Amino acid sequence: MNVNNKAYRTIWFDKEQRKVKIIDQRFLPHKFVVEEIAHVHAMAVAIKDMWVRGAGLIGAAAAFGMYLAVCKEEDLLGAAKILRETRPTAVNLSWALDRMLKLLLSKDKQEDRLEAALQEAQNIANEDAENCRLIGEQGLSIIKDIHQKKKGKTVNILTHCNAGWLAFVDYGTALSPIYAAQAAGVPVHVWVDETRPRNQGAKLTAWELHQQGIPYTVIADNTGGHLMQHQMVDMVIVGSDRTTRNGDVANKIGTYLKALAAADNNIPFYAALPSSTIDWSIIDGVKNIPIEQRNAREVKYMEGTDEKGEWRQILIAPKHSPAANYGFDVTPARLITGGIITERGIAQASEDSLLSLFPEKAKNKSNKPASSH
Amino acid sequence: MNVNNKAYRTIWFDKEQRKVKIIDQRFLPHKFVVEEIAHVHAMAVAIKDMWVRGAGLIGAAAAFGMYLAVCKEEDLLGAAKILRETRPTAVNLSWALDRMLKLLLSKDKQEDRLEAALQEAQNIANEDAENCRLIGEQGLSIIKDIHQKKKGKTVNILTHCNAGWLAFVDYGTALSPIYAAQAAGVPVHVWVDETRPRNQGAKLTAWELHQQGIPYTVIADNTGGHLMQHQMVDMVIVGSDRTTRNGDVANKIGTYLKALAAADNNIPFYAALPSSTIDWSIIDGVKNIPIEQRNAREVKYMEGTDEKGEWRQILIAPKHSPAANYGFDVTPARLITGGIITERGIAQASEDSLLSLFPEKAKNKSNKPASSH
Repeated sequence: MNVNNKAYRTIWFDKEQRKVKIIDQRFLPHKFVVEEIAHVHAMAVAIKDMWVRGAGLIGAAAAFGMYLAVCKEEDLLGAAKILRETRPTAVNLSWALDRMLKLLLSKDKQEDRLEAALQEAQNIANEDAENCRLIGEQGLSIIKDIHQKKKGKTVNILTHCNAGWLAFVDYGTALSPIYAAQAAGVPVHVWVDETRPRNQGAKLTAWELHQQGIPYTVIADNTGGHLMQHQMVDMVIVGSDRTTRNGDVANKIGTYLKALAAADNNIPFYAALPSSTIDWSIIDGVKNIPIEQRNAREVKYMEGTDEKGEWRQILIAPKHSPAANYGFDVTPARLITGGIITERGIAQASEDSLLSLFPEKAKNKSNKPASSH
Repeated sequence: MNVNNKAYRTIWFDKEQRKVKIIDQRFLPHKFVVEEIAHVHAMAVAIKDMWVRGAGLIGAAAAFGMYLAVCKEEDLLGAAKILRETRPTAVNLSWALDRMLKLLLSKDKQEDRLEAALQEAQNIANEDAENCRLIGEQGLSIIKDIHQKKKGKTVNILTHCNAGWLAFVDYGTALSPIYAAQAAGVPVHVWVDETRPRNQGAKLTAWELHQQGIPYTVIADNTGGHLMQHQMVDMVIVGSDRTTRNGDVANKIGTYLKALAAADNNIPFYAALPSSTIDWSIIDGVKNIPIEQRNAREVKYMEGTDEKGEWRQILIAPKHSPAANYGFDVTPARLITGGIITERGIAQASEDSLLSLFPEKAKNKSNKPASSH
């Protein structure tokens, strides 16, 4: 998407310099920084410390990380292990690493591996972008319907965290239908949850929407319920870091609360995700999706710029307070009342409906007890 | 309660100096500041800009504000109007002002007014403290029951915002039963919602609990749903800024989301409040309680201390982002599943049950249509 009117992706291979580059998201919205990542260890740090973040992007970043490992002739299984351990909840990371490993371990020559690694990392990135573009097309139909029902009035959409193009290689998932609506001339306004503790909404989603010229309002995460009670939200749309076979959605902590409020106020709640974020091997997300716990400092300290525009970190709680920092929560399928928007179409949040879009997964095993079917 | 082992109230009349004093809560937890308030206009600023805040405390502050107006022989109706307009949602403000006005307008002589004003402001403050102490006793029985059901294990209590002694004259409402539990030797641990955008949880509740030596953990507001899904919360208890005749509770924005999560996970949800926060004249809180909108800056800027301990304000969103700042939301009575803890006992969140504790209110009119009864 556009940054100051120039098209960017979040990660790319610079063909002239033959280098892997990323947008370093730590400094947004205050500074736009592009970094070169030259080593698999540097990529692991970039993923773990969230220079790059978001379901799709960390998959692509891991794939490019494997390419960097091949460049330096590192042990590939060791490199994959390091990358895999950076973020436990998101499934794209494992999915991309398994895909890279399967291909690379089948090549005997370093030369072949090198070519295959670069090609496959680029394939993963291109597919991610294309899937997100398709999700935008699918989701556009929903926004158009609401726009029609509202007789041409602006469609108010609430989103949590950042599932925009910054969370993927391009376009994004939750925001892709919004970008498509803008392109189609459908008026939209976005309620942007700030998304504590790391503020990806206030920092990244707000910046993205501003860059694309889409009207939005930043709100504290506490606000969505009140807005929904007062008919100020027409639909909720979020991304997903891991989706179970039956449609439970792990997404940024706090998503579950918004889904409860949407259900309580009869507002359709959608998750938008490429099928690469579906973990077909599990059901019951609350029980079976591991939830990342991050450093308590992220809750107690806040980053931003002071009145002179200088980067500052401030303490916002008593210094010795204990704090807990769970990164994600799981929204049960029953609360995904609108549906799941994928690159192939919109499914209900159920195993049968997801399988009707992805019939090739019907043979995979889930951990669902046979008796419950 | 104790501050560095010395007993304080949040507002008091200093008899030696003959001055009204407050704890200025803007600088907590980083600095403990006591201020003298010498004029009704200064008191209005202190309430509006939240030097003092919290349901009960702003009632007592308004009462002392009226005393200050009498001291300077101000127009009393004008003074009451200025104070009343500072915060629209909380009902204690109006309740205290009406009580002061009724008394003061009945006195002809300045001397009588002065004596009556000081006495009545002190009565209001003393009653607030005593009611909160009684709420602690009432709520203790609930915590003891859970403790027994858990066979002596620690009781995990989630609270939102600050309804501790800093929000009242002393003891608090939501935290009063917790202080009572500590005094009774019942082990408790408190999950403290940071409570964006003004962080009263991370700043004030964390500080209060630390001062009293009660174990707690600060969490982002987004976290409670996940904790409840994983049986890490035994009860939720919050305060109220205005409660309708039928038990709808207006409290800090985001309370409704926690109530939804508690209901979804069969965790009892309580509101603790002195009867002075019940507005017997209305039902249907979502429709009829005015919700204060505050400055967007409170969402976009965050305050705290830098690494040198200096006070800083930082920008945490794109500079020109629009932001919305609703101060409260309304939790419908159906979600107050545990009940309403008052100074007279624990009621169900219903008109009949509240009236059984406060039968003297049975004659008051509500705006409930007669046909719906």
